[in-house]
Amino acid sequence: MDTAELVELGQQLRVDSVRASAAAGSGHPTSSMSAADLMAVLIAHHLRYDFDRPAHPGNDRFVLSKGHASPLLYSAYKAAGAVDDEELLTFRGLGSRLEGHPTPQRLPWVETATGSLGQGLPVGVGIALAGKRLERTGYRVWVLCGDSELAEGSVWEAAEHAGHEHLDNLTVIVDVNRLGQRGPTRHGHDLDAYARRFQAFGWHTVEVDGHDVDAVDRAYGEALSTSGQPTAILARTLKGKGVADVEDREGLHGKPLPDADQAIEELGGVRDLRVRVPEPPDARLLHSVPSGRPDLPRWEKGEEAATRDAFGKALAALGTAREDVVALDGEVGDSTRAEAFAKEHPDRYFECYIAEQQLVAAAVGLAARGRTPYASTFAAFLSRAHDFIRMAAVSGAGVNLVGSHAGVAIGQDGPSQMGLEDLAMLRAVHGSTVLYPCDANQTARLVATMADLDGVRYLRTSRGAAPVLYGPDEEFPVGGSKVLRSSDRDRLTVVAAGVTVHEALKAAEALDGEGIAVRVVDLYSVKPVDRATLRRAAEETGCLLTVEDHHAEGGLGDAVLDAFLDGRPVPRLVRLAVRTMPGSASPAEQLHAAGIDAESIAASARLLVEQAITP
Amino acid sequence: MDTAELVELGQQLRVDSVRASAAAGSGHPTSSMSAADLMAVLIAHHLRYDFDRPAHPGNDRFVLSKGHASPLLYSAYKAAGAVDDEELLTFRGLGSRLEGHPTPQRLPWVETATGSLGQGLPVGVGIALAGKRLERTGYRVWVLCGDSELAEGSVWEAAEHAGHEHLDNLTVIVDVNRLGQRGPTRHGHDLDAYARRFQAFGWHTVEVDGHDVDAVDRAYGEALSTSGQPTAILARTLKGKGVADVEDREGLHGKPLPDADQAIEELGGVRDLRVRVPEPPDARLLHSVPSGRPDLPRWEKGEEAATRDAFGKALAALGTAREDVVALDGEVGDSTRAEAFAKEHPDRYFECYIAEQQLVAAAVGLAARGRTPYASTFAAFLSRAHDFIRMAAVSGAGVNLVGSHAGVAIGQDGPSQMGLEDLAMLRAVHGSTVLYPCDANQTARLVATMADLDGVRYLRTSRGAAPVLYGPDEEFPVGGSKVLRSSDRDRLTVVAAGVTVHEALKAAEALDGEGIAVRVVDLYSVKPVDRATLRRAAEETGCLLTVEDHHAEGGLGDAVLDAFLDGRPVPRLVRLAVRTMPGSASPAEQLHAAGIDAESIAASARLLVEQAITP
Repeated sequence: MDTAELVELGQQLRVDSVRASAAAGSGHPTSSMSAADLMAVLIAHHLRYDFDRPAHPGNDRFVLSKGHASPLLYSAYKAAGAVDDEELLTFRGLGSRLEGHPTPQRLPWVETATGSLGQGLPVGVGIALAGKRLERTGYRVWVLCGDSELAEGSVWEAAEHAGHEHLDNLTVIVDVNRLGQRGPTRHGHDLDAYARRFQAFGWHTVEVDGHDVDAVDRAYGEALSTSGQPTAILARTLKGKGVADVEDREGLHGKPLPDADQAIEELGGVRDLRVRVPEPPDARLLHSVPSGRPDLPRWEKGEEAATRDAFGKALAALGTAREDVVALDGEVGDSTRAEAFAKEHPDRYFECYIAEQQLVAAAVGLAARGRTPYASTFAAFLSRAHDFIRMAAVSGAGVNLVGSHAGVAIGQDGPSQMGLEDLAMLRAVHGSTVLYPCDANQTARLVATMADLDGVRYLRTSRGAAPVLYGPDEEFPVGGSKVLRSSDRDRLTVVAAGVTVHEALKAAEALDGEGIAVRVVDLYSVKPVDRATLRRAAEETGCLLTVEDHHAEGGLGDAVLDAFLDGRPVPRLVRLAVRTMPGSASPAEQLHAAGIDAESIAASARLLVEQAITP
Repeated sequence: MDTAELVELGQQLRVDSVRASAAAGSGHPTSSMSAADLMAVLIAHHLRYDFDRPAHPGNDRFVLSKGHASPLLYSAYKAAGAVDDEELLTFRGLGSRLEGHPTPQRLPWVETATGSLGQGLPVGVGIALAGKRLERTGYRVWVLCGDSELAEGSVWEAAEHAGHEHLDNLTVIVDVNRLGQRGPTRHGHDLDAYARRFQAFGWHTVEVDGHDVDAVDRAYGEALSTSGQPTAILARTLKGKGVADVEDREGLHGKPLPDADQAIEELGGVRDLRVRVPEPPDARLLHSVPSGRPDLPRWEKGEEAATRDAFGKALAALGTAREDVVALDGEVGDSTRAEAFAKEHPDRYFECYIAEQQLVAAAVGLAARGRTPYASTFAAFLSRAHDFIRMAAVSGAGVNLVGSHAGVAIGQDGPSQMGLEDLAMLRAVHGSTVLYPCDANQTARLVATMADLDGVRYLRTSRGAAPVLYGPDEEFPVGGSKVLRSSDRDRLTVVAAGVTVHEALKAAEALDGEGIAVRVVDLYSVKPVDRATLRRAAEETGCLLTVEDHHAEGGLGDAVLDAFLDGRPVPRLVRLAVRTMPGSASPAEQLHAAGIDAESIAASARLLVEQAITP
C-alpha cells in the first residue's frame, strides 16, 4: 500500500472501532484510535500471517497487550477478511467471539488472553523464546503495548529476559498516547524516558510519530533489520486521534464516543478496504509430536525421599521421552530440583531468574507454541504470579506449575518461605487441577500424568524426605485417592495429603493401640477430589478429620467438602490446619506447633470419637 | 571509627554471622559476609538510630531486603548493643526473636518483614514517601538489597515510583556479590549494567568496591549529599568474603560454613567491638493522632447507589475526620472512586499508577510509619500483589485493601477484569478480615470500621448501582450479618453477600408467592463469619443455600462452613457460584449465565425444599 492507502486504512480502523463500540454501548474506541496507524502499517506491510491457517508454523505472532483496544484488533481482522462487518458489530454481546478483551478460547488468531495490563510483553517473550530456541521457523513476535502499562514491573521482568536472551525476533510497539485511564501517565509524551529504560535493559529503540505511516513503516523495517537485540518502537500518538471532540482529552477512557455518527463523518465515513496481509514463509515444525512413555524413576517402599527430588528426576525422565516438555525455574532449580531437567535437557530449560511473573508468562507463551511447560519455584513465591495464573486460565493455557517448600514443614526458614496459601490460590483458578503427593513414586507418576491434562495444573512438593509408601507401579489417577488404612470398625476418617499423610499414619497406629480404629485417606488429588471415596468414608465412619500443612481457608479441608455440597447430608468434619503465624523452628517443632502432627491428630481423633458416643 | 576499626567491625559482623549460622545449623552466612563491610560503615557512621527508642520519629529506617542475610542484621544489632551474644546464638531456634528472616512482629527495629525477595525496596519507598510528604522529620531510608532480587519487576516498580517522586531521602545499597542461590546472576559483577537501569529510572548511582570501607563511606556521603533523586549504591562484593574455602564460590548459598572454627580463625577470631550508632536528630511527629468520628455520607432506603461510590465518599469523609488516613490507587481511581479522596485530600493521596505490587508495598510502608492506608484497585488486579499481601500479614501490617469490580456483575468487560478469586485469596491470608457490602450505607460504615482493625483487611466493592437496603444509622459489626427476611416457617436459608443479596431477596419474594418461606442472610462479614446466626439458621431451616459472585472455591460458601467445622452436625449446604468461564455480556446476562441470579436461586431453592420433603 502507498502512503495514502495506509492513511485510509488507519482511518477505516478508527471508524470501525467507533462503530463497534457504539453498537456495544461500551468499549475503548479512543485507545483504539491512537494505535490505528500503527496497526494499519503492521498488517499491510509487516505482519506475515495466514488468517486461514492460524496454526501455520511460519506465521508471525501478534499480541495485543493493551487488550482493551480490542475494537482495533477486531477492525483489523475485518480489514484482513477474517471477520465480517456483521460479526464486528456483535462486539461485547452475549455469545460473541469478539469479547471486551480478546481470548484465544474464542478466536484462533489470538495468542494469549490480555486485559490485565503488563502481561502481553511477558507472554510475547515466551513465544519469542519458543521461536528462537525451539521452533526456528523464523517467525517474528509483535507486541502492541500501551504506555500506562509500562509501570507494571512485569514489563521490566520481560524486558530483562528478552534483552538477556537477545530476542531479535521480538518487537514491542508502544502506543504512547500519554493518557491512562484516570489521566496523564507519569511520562506523558516523553518518548525518551521510555527509550532510556528499554535501552538500559539491552534493547534497540526507535522513536517515531505514530501517526506518520511512512515513519512507522521505516521503524518496523528498522526493527526487522536489527540483530542481536529486541526492538522497542516508541510511538508518539494521540488518544482519540482524528476526532476533535475526543482527541488527546482526559476523562474519555473506556467510553463509546459521545456522537458516533459525527465522529465517523469526521473520520471520512465508513470504508471497506481489504488488506492483503503478507504471507508467512514456508516453514515446518522441526519438533516431533509428544511420544513415548517415560522411564520414570523408581523407589522401593520404605526408602526415604523428598517429593521435590522425585519431581526433578521424573521431569528429567519425562523430558527424555517427550520433546514437547520444557522446564522453567525462578533461579531456585537447586531447591525445586528442576536442575535435574536442566542438566539433561539444557536446550529445553529456561532460567527465568528471580522473576516469577515472567516465569509463568514465559510458560504461557511456550504453551501457546505447543510446548508442555513445567514452571517451578517455591510454592510461596508462585503467589507473585497469581494474576498471570488467573489469566492463563482465561487463555485456556496448558501449563504445569510446581511449588516446592510447602507449608510449615520446611522448618527454620520461617513464614516468608512457607507455601501456606498456594492450595487456596490454585484451587480457585478456573478449570485447574491441584495435586499434592506424599511420596516419591506418587510424585513421579503425577508429574507424568499432569502433562496431558487441560488448563492450569499444580503440583505441590515438599522439602523434607519422607518414607516411600507406594510401590513404583501403583497408579494415581487424577480425581482419585488412596485408602491407606481401613477396617469395618473405623470410627473416624483422617483425610490428609503430603506431609500430613505420614503424620496421620502415625496417629492411626497409636490410636489403634488404644482400640480406636481410624481410616486414613491420602487425598493426593486435591482438585478434583475423589467424591466416591470420601462419601463412602463419611457413611461408614460418620466423621471426617482433615489435616493439612496450609492455612485453614481454601485448602484440603474445603476441598473435601466439595464431595458433599450438592444438598446431600454433610458429615461432621473438623479441619486441622495452620492457624497461627509460624516462626523459625525445626520441621517437627513446626508441625507440632501448628497442631498438625501425629500427636495433634490423635488428640483430635479421640475427642471426635468421644463426641460421637455422647453427642 | 577509623579505617582499621571499620575493617575490624566488618570482620566481627562476619564472625558473628558465621557463629550464629553454625549454632543454628542453617542460615545464610555467605550472603551476610558479602555485605558485612557495607553494614559496618552504615551503622558506624551513617545510620542515625536510637535502639532504645525504635519509635523515635527522627530515627533513620533500615530495611534488609535480602532478608536471608539475617545473621548480618542480628550481628549488627549485637555490635550496637541491642542484643547480646547469648541471644545471637538462639538464631533460628524455636521461640527466638531472631528468625530465619526478620519480622517486625518479633523485633522492634525491623520495619517490615522480608524474605520474599524484591519487597524491601518497594516497602522502603512507602516509608520514604511517608518521610518526605507526611512526617518531614528528616529521616533517611536505607535499603540493603541483593543483586539477584533486581530481576524482580517489583524492584523496578519501586525504582520508577521513587525516581518520579524524587525521593532523595532514600538510598538503596546493592550487594553485588554476583552469585544467586543457584549460581551466577545475569550480570555478574557488571555494576554498570545495574547503574544504567537505575539511572534510566531517574536515580543517582554510585559504583564502589564494597569491601573498601573508606570508599563505601564516601559513597554513603555522596548519597546523603544528593538532592532531588534517590541514590543507588552498587557495591562490588564477594559472597563469603574473607574465608578462602567459600569466598566467591558457587553451591554454598544458604548453608552454614563447612568449618566454622577454621573460618572464625581465618577472620581473625571472635571480637567484641561495640559501635556507637549515630544519634537521630531531635524530631517530633507533626501529624496529630487519629481522632474524630467521620461525618459519613448517608443514603435513604430505596435510593440506588454503587458500593464503589459509597467507598469513595466514605473514604473522603474518613480522611476529613482522621489525619492518619491515607489513600493509594493503581491509576484507576476514577473506577474505584478513590478519586473522591484524592480531590479532598491531595496531600495524603498517593497515585501509584498501574503497579499493584508497588501499590500494596507503599501501603505497607505507610502503615509502618503509623498511617492507616487504603489501597484500591480492581479486585482482579489485587492478585498481582498477592505475595505482598501475604508478606504484609507476616509483618503484621495494618493495611486496608479495596477491590472494586467484583465478579461477573461487571458485565461486558469480560473475565480479565472480573474479581472471581479475590475472596479466596484474601480469606487465606493469616489474620485477615474480609468484608463484602451490598449497599451504600453498609459500605460507608464498614469503610470507617475497618480502619481500626488489626492486620490485612479487605473490602470488596461492586461496579453497578444497587438499591439501598439499610438506613444510614444501622450498625454493621465485623463478624456480624443481617437477617433480611425470616419467619418461623422458613424452610431454607439463602446466604448471600454483595450483588447476590439483591438477587436473593428477589428470589425469596417469588418463592413466598409460591408458599415457600425462605430466610435471607446478608453475610457482609465474610471473615470472620457470624457463626451464631448461621447456626441458628441451620437449626431452624435445616438447609443452607449460599450464592456468590465468585468462584466456588474459597469464597462465601466455604466461609459459611467455617461456622460448622468444629465437629458439630453440618447442615445440608448447596453453593451457587461462578463455575464457568464468562465472556462478555450485560450484567444481568452474566448473573443468569453463571446461575447466581434470582431465577437460579429460586430454582435451586425449590429443588432443595423438595429434597427435604422426600429425602
